[in-house]
Amino acid sequence: MAKKWNTFDVLRHSRHDWLNRLQLIKGNLALDHVDRAKEIIEEIIIQSRQEAKLSNLNAPKLAEYILTFNWCNHLFQLDFEVIGDEYDISAYEVDVVELLTQCTKVLDAMVEIPEDHHLLLTLQLYHEEIHLVLDFQGEVSDQNKLKLAFENTDVKSAKLIELEQNNQELVSTFLIK
Amino acid sequence: MAKKWNTFDVLRHSRHDWLNRLQLIKGNLALDHVDRAKEIIEEIIIQSRQEAKLSNLNAPKLAEYILTFNWCNHLFQLDFEVIGDEYDISAYEVDVVELLTQCTKVLDAMVEIPEDHHLLLTLQLYHEEIHLVLDFQGEVSDQNKLKLAFENTDVKSAKLIELEQNNQELVSTFLIK
Repeated sequence: MAKKWNTFDVLRHSRHDWLNRLQLIKGNLALDHVDRAKEIIEEIIIQSRQEAKLSNLNAPKLAEYILTFNWCNHLFQLDFEVIGDEYDISAYEVDVVELLTQCTKVLDAMVEIPEDHHLLLTLQLYHEEIHLVLDFQGEVSDQNKLKLAFENTDVKSAKLIELEQNNQELVSTFLIK
Repeated sequence: MAKKWNTFDVLRHSRHDWLNRLQLIKGNLALDHVDRAKEIIEEIIIQSRQEAKLSNLNAPKLAEYILTFNWCNHLFQLDFEVIGDEYDISAYEVDVVELLTQCTKVLDAMVEIPEDHHLLLTLQLYHEEIHLVLDFQGEVSDQNKLKLAFENTDVKSAKLIELEQNNQELVSTFLIK
């Protein structure tokens, strides 16, 4: 169940995130690391382009889910990227949100606190076929149970087509169609 | 009537605003104007503190009204500052929003397009007495009519206590109590 945001809270969280980025730039300028400051600005602009791309898929609920995820007290950090063409994925929006909700819920239940965990979500959009890659890096209490949960998500249009597991990494690829 | 924002649009507008600020910093760094870039960062941080202050008054609808105002196709730009103590102004929130709505509506109806108009809104909070100062700079079609409209706002707790008028400036001070 997605959190219902009000404008006030969105503005507050967003301001907080941007000020953190600004502090990074400011800190580097204070140390005369101008080139590093420029790099950070470029990184922020690239990330913002990704956000704009995500926002152009006619899937506002999905965009909201991803862009507000890190404000919601999860036990890991979500990063994301959108690769490929921009097109209307509204027909799959509900399913992708549901799949993400199920997977992240499992992860939240199984990660070891208070380690530094990351989930990189990649939305690959090619030829009107959506691949959703979840690359989780971190320690979980039971790798096999996690794998099992990912193999048994209950979302109509999503099919797990690949699952690679290393020591501290689980990469799962879902085909959405 | 305040616009009802959804999270998606708030994020989009907010990102757009912040990227504009970032471009200013980037532009100055590209020209080796590092000191100017630092100044801009300080200005942004000061403005963000004002936003945080506005957000600490337990008046989320008022904060939302002010912070989203410039996204709403008005004929002038709104800037704001909060001076004085931070305290709970929730009892006056509805009235302040109503007063602002009435005043800005009059201004929108009377400003000359497409000049560069500004409204500086100052919220002065002293001894649990609120002063709202509206400093409008720009050309309007009829200064006297504007003055008359400001003198006759219909908001219970608001009283116009000062009105100064120069050629291209109208400063009106309301006491809210």
